[in-house]
Amino acid sequence: MVHAQNVRVRTTELVAIDERRLLRRLNELSQRGAAPEGGITRLLYTPAWVSAMELASGWMKDAGLLVRRDAVGNVWGRVEGSRGGRAIVSGSHVDTVRCGGALDGALGVVAAVEAVTSLVAAFGRPTRILECVAICEEEGSRFATNLWGARAIADRLEPDEAARVRDGDGVTLAEAMRGVGLDPARAAQAVRRDIDAFVELHVEQGPVLDERGERLGVVRVVAGTAHLEVTVRGEPDHAGAAAMERRHDALLGASAMVLAVAEAAREAGPPAVATVGTISVEPSQVNVVPGLARFTVDARHSEERARAELVAEITRRCKVVARERDLAVEVRALRDRPAVTLSERVGDVLRRACLAAGVTPRDMTSGAGHDAQILSVAASAAMLFVPSIGGRSHRGDEATAAEDVVLGTRVLATALRELAYEAPR
Amino acid sequence: MVHAQNVRVRTTELVAIDERRLLRRLNELSQRGAAPEGGITRLLYTPAWVSAMELASGWMKDAGLLVRRDAVGNVWGRVEGSRGGRAIVSGSHVDTVRCGGALDGALGVVAAVEAVTSLVAAFGRPTRILECVAICEEEGSRFATNLWGARAIADRLEPDEAARVRDGDGVTLAEAMRGVGLDPARAAQAVRRDIDAFVELHVEQGPVLDERGERLGVVRVVAGTAHLEVTVRGEPDHAGAAAMERRHDALLGASAMVLAVAEAAREAGPPAVATVGTISVEPSQVNVVPGLARFTVDARHSEERARAELVAEITRRCKVVARERDLAVEVRALRDRPAVTLSERVGDVLRRACLAAGVTPRDMTSGAGHDAQILSVAASAAMLFVPSIGGRSHRGDEATAAEDVVLGTRVLATALRELAYEAPR
Repeated sequence: MVHAQNVRVRTTELVAIDERRLLRRLNELSQRGAAPEGGITRLLYTPAWVSAMELASGWMKDAGLLVRRDAVGNVWGRVEGSRGGRAIVSGSHVDTVRCGGALDGALGVVAAVEAVTSLVAAFGRPTRILECVAICEEEGSRFATNLWGARAIADRLEPDEAARVRDGDGVTLAEAMRGVGLDPARAAQAVRRDIDAFVELHVEQGPVLDERGERLGVVRVVAGTAHLEVTVRGEPDHAGAAAMERRHDALLGASAMVLAVAEAAREAGPPAVATVGTISVEPSQVNVVPGLARFTVDARHSEERARAELVAEITRRCKVVARERDLAVEVRALRDRPAVTLSERVGDVLRRACLAAGVTPRDMTSGAGHDAQILSVAASAAMLFVPSIGGRSHRGDEATAAEDVVLGTRVLATALRELAYEAPR
Repeated sequence: MVHAQNVRVRTTELVAIDERRLLRRLNELSQRGAAPEGGITRLLYTPAWVSAMELASGWMKDAGLLVRRDAVGNVWGRVEGSRGGRAIVSGSHVDTVRCGGALDGALGVVAAVEAVTSLVAAFGRPTRILECVAICEEEGSRFATNLWGARAIADRLEPDEAARVRDGDGVTLAEAMRGVGLDPARAAQAVRRDIDAFVELHVEQGPVLDERGERLGVVRVVAGTAHLEVTVRGEPDHAGAAAMERRHDALLGASAMVLAVAEAAREAGPPAVATVGTISVEPSQVNVVPGLARFTVDARHSEERARAELVAEITRRCKVVARERDLAVEVRALRDRPAVTLSERVGDVLRRACLAAGVTPRDMTSGAGHDAQILSVAASAAMLFVPSIGGRSHRGDEATAAEDVVLGTRVLATALRELAYEAPR
């Protein structure tokens, strides 16, 4: 007699969720920080962010979870497992870029709350500790730092970071923390060393799934990111009195460099990307030739060697432009996050859950950075992608079909069920 | 018998001044708003500006002049003329660009005070009303407007300008006026309709005199200036997830336009100049492809038709770049100041004074804008230039040889003597 209990080939049943509640909550969260002209702005420790965090906290309480805010403001909802051990966690970030969309981060938070709520309602107490988390910050849209929430959990904060890092108004991260009742001196207490698996549902933020008509992707690698700051020094001069051929215009040099940065990425070919996202000049006056120009470069590639080559080529081209135009240039590394390979084991759990939904997931590389890439140093981390319509991201009209939002959440719940209810280790 | 009284060919005697006082006061004024790292910043209605105005006011009082602050904050020092009539005025502006030099504007103020002081001390009461003026603002370095002081005198303020115009922190000009005890509703009271001649001593801000080893220039024409604002609209996108060939990066378009603007001026040839002095992007985040870029263009030429052609060519090239890159572009005229021909009559007085010093002055066109160009609508205005070493301007190391500062001030005093003591009309 053959028993149908072979765990390796079992067909998991797709977990049911409350679809209307899920979509309603996504909509509710999108009102927090919404601008009248469209787009959502929830910057770390601002009133819109506080309001969003309170909303998420309320949902967790409604589900009967044990809710706590940690030392940097991440909000956790927990249900104890019958066998204890290390925790199974799902979540994403609550903050947004300026004028961002309703799903980037938010989907992973709302879906995690929905999945845990539905699982506890349907199956009761899990065998493993099961948690959902609303991470305070990932985007780097307010302070000159990013992935703050996940780094606090993974013990990757830098010494004095909160006191050192400022927003555009000169407010330090530490001051902003105090403003929402957090003590920066206690930030290290946010560290967790007891997480087994972290699973994050996220919108793709690129066009791959949408263009191919595929509905689910499991991320194998998160591309590495280099951030550079390029400072170009010429000489300020009078816009009326200085003849064109006498000038050492820093902005003319920077403009040629901005074009060269994009060209370097295009020549390297996909998946290389390079972006100049910020630029400023000094003295920044309509009638003064800029004596200084400063811009940032964001350069990414999923292969480490190719990324290093891209950064070297960008640096080289900026220096060539500076030499041709008799300007000084300085290229400074602001940040260098290597590519991260996510957990094969937890990725397999996600792949099985996709198959339970009748979908073969696409293996993916994420060009975007994610909380999961940081949490992979503290836990076995995995990511599930649903399509972004038209690949639109970091903008107010970012969108995903409602049926894909529901599908992704059901697959997430199904994976969490396998991790928290069936696979004690 | 021939009398040596032919007025047309008389040799004027160069007026003596207190050279040490002149240089000491220039140095004193340069301390107001001086930054530790070099450069002087005296923005309209800021504490550094108030301090500089009080200094100038004190000098005028020391000379026994009747001192008053007008409705926008220009400070006037006056000595009544024995025959009354319309006034003879000399002065320049007290404000600076950010990190500017010690002479731009300041020289014309200190020299005017010195000239009037020396004239009254040496020759007593003039026949004509004689005044020196410290003009409150010319540079446009704080508010999105410029030539504020001269325009108030010449009745060229725009309706509601003070309430409408803001600085970078969102403070209106009206609010800033109230902050220094001025009532914006009274701004129109600064208008003067009783000025006969306005004479301004200024540094050249360009290299012409210095390179030719010439010491004095009399300005015939002040070049016209067009200020444009160019807004480039693409689509914001994720710096990691959006492939290079899918992007509509507004900053890439703007960078190509910035280069095209300079190229248009170079191709037009001297004296055409075009400058992009400010640039910004949105959302201005290191990891977001800019969806919008905005920059200003300052385009100048001493001939009106050539200037119009330059502006048209710049606009055309920006549109070509936008079309090539599938971006939207809008070119908006912020300001258009036509070229101004200064007074031949008062210019002749300056030329005679130069000859009295043994110097044949150079006829000049000013690429830079000046208070005199505005005051020429309310009075017969003339300008005297002394050299700028290396043509350096709008920067902390702007400089003029002390002997040229002294020479220019003596020539100014000599011209004012002819205007206020000898030529009643």
